[in-house]
Amino acid sequence: MIRVMVGSTVPTEHLDRVLELYSRLVAETRKEPGCVSYELLQRQDDPRELMLVEEWQSQEHLDAHTRTPHFVAIVGELDQLERAAPALIYNQLL
Amino acid sequence: MIRVMVGSTVPTEHLDRVLELYSRLVAETRKEPGCVSYELLQRQDDPRELMLVEEWQSQEHLDAHTRTPHFVAIVGELDQLERAAPALIYNQLL
Repeated sequence: MIRVMVGSTVPTEHLDRVLELYSRLVAETRKEPGCVSYELLQRQDDPRELMLVEEWQSQEHLDAHTRTPHFVAIVGELDQLERAAPALIYNQLL
Repeated sequence: MIRVMVGSTVPTEHLDRVLELYSRLVAETRKEPGCVSYELLQRQDDPRELMLVEEWQSQEHLDAHTRTPHFVAIVGELDQLERAAPALIYNQLL
């Protein structure tokens, strides 16, 4: 089981469109094999700061996710609208 | 429901002791009212990078957590051993 966190900063004028895209991405991704959870969080003190929090059964499932047509298409569009940090991969210790 | 993330960087020579302290903190915190989940993650590519991921029923429960004797004592000791970032508070959007 692995955890992934991807932070991003969204200019206010793009926030509505970005949230539409994430809504589709989350709905499609939750149907994928190996997806344990896939959630989008928003900072209370700054709505431009988003965090995608993911849990996958294995690295192989995560790799397959990044090759799905919905991932490629939606993340391609998101990249034009927000500034995303590199995905950070974690193991749960406790 | 609110989510909290607290990242920290631990010098390698303090990692064993820090993980002992987190183990006690996690065990005590999970018994608290309003604690939905409380987990410690470790970066796959750098074991010095930890992330506490918390879910609380309300801000009031989180505030009460930070006044418990175990929180005050353990976090006081952790502060001597690691460099923690400010806690970031999120709402779940999706």
